[in-house]
Amino acid sequence: MTEPITERVDDPEAKRESGRRKMEWARQHMPICESLRTEFEADQPFADEVVGMAMHVEAKTAILAELLAVGGAEVAITGCNPLSTHDDVSVALDAVEGVTSYAEREVDDEAYYAAMEAVIEHEPTITVDDGMDLVAAIHEDYPELIDSIVGGCEETTTGVHRLRAMDDDGELAYPMFAVNDTPMKRLFDNVHGTGESSLASIAMTTNLSWAGKTVVVAGYGHCGKGVAKKASGQNADVVVTEVEPRRALEAHMEGYDVLPMEEAAAEGDVFITTTGNRDVIVSEHFEAMDDGVLLANAGHFDVEIDLDALSELAVDEYEARDGVQAYEMADGRRLNVLAEGRLVNLATPVALGHPVEVMDQSFGVQAVCVRELVESGEEYEAGVHDVPDRLDREVAEIKLDAEGVAFDSLTETQEEYMGSWQHGT
Amino acid sequence: MTEPITERVDDPEAKRESGRRKMEWARQHMPICESLRTEFEADQPFADEVVGMAMHVEAKTAILAELLAVGGAEVAITGCNPLSTHDDVSVALDAVEGVTSYAEREVDDEAYYAAMEAVIEHEPTITVDDGMDLVAAIHEDYPELIDSIVGGCEETTTGVHRLRAMDDDGELAYPMFAVNDTPMKRLFDNVHGTGESSLASIAMTTNLSWAGKTVVVAGYGHCGKGVAKKASGQNADVVVTEVEPRRALEAHMEGYDVLPMEEAAAEGDVFITTTGNRDVIVSEHFEAMDDGVLLANAGHFDVEIDLDALSELAVDEYEARDGVQAYEMADGRRLNVLAEGRLVNLATPVALGHPVEVMDQSFGVQAVCVRELVESGEEYEAGVHDVPDRLDREVAEIKLDAEGVAFDSLTETQEEYMGSWQHGT
Amino acid sequence: MTEPITERVDDPEAKRESGRRKMEWARQHMPICESLRTEFEADQPFADEVVGMAMHVEAKTAILAELLAVGGAEVAITGCNPLSTHDDVSVALDAVEGVTSYAEREVDDEAYYAAMEAVIEHEPTITVDDGMDLVAAIHEDYPELIDSIVGGCEETTTGVHRLRAMDDDGELAYPMFAVNDTPMKRLFDNVHGTGESSLASIAMTTNLSWAGKTVVVAGYGHCGKGVAKKASGQNADVVVTEVEPRRALEAHMEGYDVLPMEEAAAEGDVFITTTGNRDVIVSEHFEAMDDGVLLANAGHFDVEIDLDALSELAVDEYEARDGVQAYEMADGRRLNVLAEGRLVNLATPVALGHPVEVMDQSFGVQAVCVRELVESGEEYEAGVHDVPDRLDREVAEIKLDAEGVAFDSLTETQEEYMGSWQHGT
Amino acid sequence: MTEPITERVDDPEAKRESGRRKMEWARQHMPICESLRTEFEADQPFADEVVGMAMHVEAKTAILAELLAVGGAEVAITGCNPLSTHDDVSVALDAVEGVTSYAEREVDDEAYYAAMEAVIEHEPTITVDDGMDLVAAIHEDYPELIDSIVGGCEETTTGVHRLRAMDDDGELAYPMFAVNDTPMKRLFDNVHGTGESSLASIAMTTNLSWAGKTVVVAGYGHCGKGVAKKASGQNADVVVTEVEPRRALEAHMEGYDVLPMEEAAAEGDVFITTTGNRDVIVSEHFEAMDDGVLLANAGHFDVEIDLDALSELAVDEYEARDGVQAYEMADGRRLNVLAEGRLVNLATPVALGHPVEVMDQSFGVQAVCVRELVESGEEYEAGVHDVPDRLDREVAEIKLDAEGVAFDSLTETQEEYMGSWQHGT
Repeated sequence: MTEPITERVDDPEAKRESGRRKMEWARQHMPICESLRTEFEADQPFADEVVGMAMHVEAKTAILAELLAVGGAEVAITGCNPLSTHDDVSVALDAVEGVTSYAEREVDDEAYYAAMEAVIEHEPTITVDDGMDLVAAIHEDYPELIDSIVGGCEETTTGVHRLRAMDDDGELAYPMFAVNDTPMKRLFDNVHGTGESSLASIAMTTNLSWAGKTVVVAGYGHCGKGVAKKASGQNADVVVTEVEPRRALEAHMEGYDVLPMEEAAAEGDVFITTTGNRDVIVSEHFEAMDDGVLLANAGHFDVEIDLDALSELAVDEYEARDGVQAYEMADGRRLNVLAEGRLVNLATPVALGHPVEVMDQSFGVQAVCVRELVESGEEYEAGVHDVPDRLDREVAEIKLDAEGVAFDSLTETQEEYMGSWQHGT
Repeated sequence: MTEPITERVDDPEAKRESGRRKMEWARQHMPICESLRTEFEADQPFADEVVGMAMHVEAKTAILAELLAVGGAEVAITGCNPLSTHDDVSVALDAVEGVTSYAEREVDDEAYYAAMEAVIEHEPTITVDDGMDLVAAIHEDYPELIDSIVGGCEETTTGVHRLRAMDDDGELAYPMFAVNDTPMKRLFDNVHGTGESSLASIAMTTNLSWAGKTVVVAGYGHCGKGVAKKASGQNADVVVTEVEPRRALEAHMEGYDVLPMEEAAAEGDVFITTTGNRDVIVSEHFEAMDDGVLLANAGHFDVEIDLDALSELAVDEYEARDGVQAYEMADGRRLNVLAEGRLVNLATPVALGHPVEVMDQSFGVQAVCVRELVESGEEYEAGVHDVPDRLDREVAEIKLDAEGVAFDSLTETQEEYMGSWQHGT
Repeated sequence: MTEPITERVDDPEAKRESGRRKMEWARQHMPICESLRTEFEADQPFADEVVGMAMHVEAKTAILAELLAVGGAEVAITGCNPLSTHDDVSVALDAVEGVTSYAEREVDDEAYYAAMEAVIEHEPTITVDDGMDLVAAIHEDYPELIDSIVGGCEETTTGVHRLRAMDDDGELAYPMFAVNDTPMKRLFDNVHGTGESSLASIAMTTNLSWAGKTVVVAGYGHCGKGVAKKASGQNADVVVTEVEPRRALEAHMEGYDVLPMEEAAAEGDVFITTTGNRDVIVSEHFEAMDDGVLLANAGHFDVEIDLDALSELAVDEYEARDGVQAYEMADGRRLNVLAEGRLVNLATPVALGHPVEVMDQSFGVQAVCVRELVESGEEYEAGVHDVPDRLDREVAEIKLDAEGVAFDSLTETQEEYMGSWQHGT
Repeated sequence: MTEPITERVDDPEAKRESGRRKMEWARQHMPICESLRTEFEADQPFADEVVGMAMHVEAKTAILAELLAVGGAEVAITGCNPLSTHDDVSVALDAVEGVTSYAEREVDDEAYYAAMEAVIEHEPTITVDDGMDLVAAIHEDYPELIDSIVGGCEETTTGVHRLRAMDDDGELAYPMFAVNDTPMKRLFDNVHGTGESSLASIAMTTNLSWAGKTVVVAGYGHCGKGVAKKASGQNADVVVTEVEPRRALEAHMEGYDVLPMEEAAAEGDVFITTTGNRDVIVSEHFEAMDDGVLLANAGHFDVEIDLDALSELAVDEYEARDGVQAYEMADGRRLNVLAEGRLVNLATPVALGHPVEVMDQSFGVQAVCVRELVESGEEYEAGVHDVPDRLDREVAEIKLDAEGVAFDSLTETQEEYMGSWQHGT
């Protein structure tokens, strides 16, 4: 039986203090969650609910967990990636009233799943996932809990993709909000969050610059667009690889080079995968690459770069730098892999995950979705649901208000005009 | 009874030659339509069909009309805006086998509608619209034709908006493809086409520059995004006005200032409306503006800038320059309106409409939609329909092929991975 | 003996009215010249001076000529390029008190030089040049005038380059201000002016778009940087060719591809030369180009693209469009040359030259340089002189003031700190 | 008497290994220095020379020190900023044959100057400075050494500024190369190096994002331009403050807001100083700032933000986060200062200094300047000298060659054309 993190770590006092400081910093820059806290504290919308969470446990997520607890929920949380947990934040979160945290960094697979089970044993009525591991575990191993679950939220592109596949197979047994698919999430978190934090993490892990570099971005979805845009904004020459012709064309019309990976491999200085798929960079690509290239992944799972194949090709492997593993080829070329091919904005030693403000938006949507499930969960059938537009819009309005940004509203004449069709030229 | 343009103009011979040269230039840069022409010439998909068109009659549209005729259709065409017709192209088009053109520049309202009636009297089986005037006229005045109409296509945001309103009212009596809403149309035509051509038209009408100018973009839909992005790319300082909070936030996160028009009015050097709505710039805004500002519209109708109100405020009005009307206020300020508030990329003296290549994409979608209606029209119910994804994708592939851009395809393992959900971390 | 333009053209009345309207528009957007006009009108600094000018005679230059005349000078002006004169402006200028204009569009070489001689026969005491033709003609054919010439100003990179060569040869007999080399001129006129106006002129001459195009920019000096930056800002993929390694590296670090022209020729969709040198694009390059490419020049002279060689390669030549000459190769490829290889922002049918505001800055510097020559000309030796920093700074301050832009000034402590060196870490 | 770092630190073995790994990584990405190493190893240009260095002692600088030693010099080095030394690199460098390193992190003032004296006691014949502390110390305290000093190099804007002031006072007693002023240094190091590394350091110290933030950049010199450009490339809204009107105008024409700091203070979310001056942000500005703002300095000295004044205004001060000191105002506003107002790209806990590649360029220029001093030092008089153009150009060519970037060269006809001036229009 897994115990909460506080029971397991050395010097929990110091960790708690360090974690609290991190949370305080995040809270300062999360005006949406702060605004919702005022509302939830008064309304206690989550009284009697148990929220099970499997997310990257660091300061920003902690503010979401805390927010749900402040609103009356019993919260049990664990990590969704063994390398992304900040132990100090986990301990600080474990000390928040109403929250139990099981997340611990660098645990082995067994301990990782044991922690997830510990969360499930709280018998959650609502699940909040980042990669759908919790949903999957409940469906596979705890089907008896499903009846009492109101619904859940899923944060990532990849998770939503897998949930939709599960739903198509008729296997998804409770309603899930596809938080990833909201405008608020996709446009800000994916584009700005993944883009900026991936590049900053790579720069600060390697001490290399972007200017004049050829950066190959694999995939031109929202994450890929963000990475490409921000890399271009640092004066990199961007090459995009894609499998979908509209996206390929969109990248081409943006002014980027679009190439098959086979050709891009020989041109790139830095490779960043964002596809959500596997085997995006494989043996034939490694063989074409120049000495000294960087390989990083910004997609959810660590399967985009085929590290097994790279290991097989290499005559030597060593840590070139904290967070950088060098694979030396027989011909002397060194291919440098960051963060073991895991999420580069989360898993390098200096990585901090998504920027605070974009997570504030994302978690604001999560929070109002949990509120929606509590208030109207019974109206949603089992399956994947888009976040209702009014909730997404509500969060945008809270954010604009917090930023002091005013905008126009339609006059009556304009409302009427937009609804009419009888006008001539 | 309206006659074809050729019967009505002076020196049709010279106009035809001039129009043909324009069409030849367009054809050189429309590889998608050229690729489809090869297919249609062989297959004759439109034999026995009559296509009625109401579009901006200039060289690029002429290539679409010609393409449909080459594929076997009888084509009757008129303009969708009295200022956007190029008479020479209209004459050249009228000479194409299978095409009759009624479009003429600067006709009065009566002649404009008479030309539309002339098109309708061809008894079209398919309609192709840019602003839904043809659909509206048929529904209002020629309901007896509806039974024999297979369906139609609508090109613009505004037209689709009005069609959806009509559909919601249960008034739309045949299937219409919302060509405007395809990724191919919205992303390329609206963003790149409207953006680039509006700015180039303003620059070449005024001889003014963008660097250091404050450009107020009203509306942050696809057109507004394009105008903002391209203006920023010319070193303008962009201000966005919006009524939808997610769009307002998106503009803010892009780095633009977001302001209510009331405040923006006092800051702007150039104002460009892209909302598709009316009364976007009105008296209170005119009163706040600086001397010498430019006012231009890139939305479909000329109702976004309230020119009647401006006229009332003005103590003098005069043509400051071809395509620029100056309104002088009592306090000496001069507000310069381009193209009478009509589409600035179509209606100034030097304007050429959307760039050839983006219209090639847009018209490629139109052409395959017409083909779809002929092949499977009966499968579509009356109402607005999204363009089937496979058609849009087909056009993207033709374009990439023509540009020599290669892209990747999914391996079997990848296809399978994308469809699965049982994978762990 | 050449007569003023007014004596030579049809319907001078109408031309004068049209030219005046153009000048009025320019004046509205030239706040620096307007500010100086107030000063010059009061001070009459140019009384007793004769200013000879050889410049592109269009509305903006007319404001400079008028400004000098308002300040008391007798002004005689002709064109510096047979294709860039606007006859209506020339006539309107000729009607300004104190100004005689000889400039006429599309005159032959003989008439062009006769007009220049007519200017020289006014016995200028100050010369204002755009390409140093006036300086050269005086030195070669009217050496007797040199003694009474106080000095002159040269506007262009190319002109200054040639003046420096002349100076190095000990042949330059009076002081010349290298207006081109001031920060105000190089950074704004070259970068923003040439960049924006060249691209807008190409777009509006061809109706083609920039998004996704490969644009080859030959030369990465100030003009080349402007063209590259603005093309990139319209989503073109920019390739730079250079002969100087630091500039080549600068372009590379900006994120552009840098290639020898031999390779760039095969990749480009549009080629824009900005080198100030000759034979930048020659036979071997034409042979490597794709069908449908555009060739344009933004450098001073029409020698950058070797049109003779292109003519020899071509099996057919025809006007594909106003301002576009198509050269058809034996293999069917069509290479489209804009404006006969002359300045593309001046010499296409729709071209308007540099934007008004940037010329305002450039001409503001010209005007204060002429004032400087009158006030202190005897202090300058024969040869090329940089514009004194204080004059350039004066113009910047006038401009900022006109734009309503405030900036900081150094405190005494800061002044002292900047001048000291005894401070520790 | 100060001993080398190795004698002073704990566990030098482990530090040496860690330092070597860092140097190896840097070397992999410093192709210019690697190319020069081959040359110097063969030629031994520095035999019999003693090079005294005071620079930021981290991996990249270590490569320069090593390169000079490989070329035959005796090298003695210390830090130029108590917070920028990496002890492990200092130890690894101390182990390089021919190098003695005295640099140690976080020493007090006394130890800092003692280390500088230790370097001077090696009796350098050449000095390499980053902030001119070594030059100043020698002139003030060791004038007897000056006769045997061939010359020196200075890396920074600020150092060169102070050297010029010293030179103007007639106090500079040996020749100094103003490495900072070369195109290679200013354009790449300042623009790309300072820009990218400052932003990445701020992002990774705070976990905040740039999108939608208002970033106030104080100073629009090369560093300020880099910071502004890169911030804009991350979708920040940039505000520039300046004291020089041409620079202010340049920023305005780039599309940025230009404001006096007094107004900017109320608008900014992040403030980055790059002026090289003192008291850029002072009490009146702190009082106008919003809660939660970030304050960072990217100029050489820590005097740009007046921290004494801030301390006086604050009712509380605490470490909000590693590298972030919060100053709490009486009204509850928290102003967050990064890295104690020292160089933010060097002095935060995660900071790594300039990117490797830009330092490679900068140090390549340093290395060839030292070679120039040895070869032709006697030809240079005492005073500040620009780096000879041929040296700067040599380094650019080495770099382009290493990057595989080819460029054109002038033909004989072109050379001749550029030198001639007799050509007509």
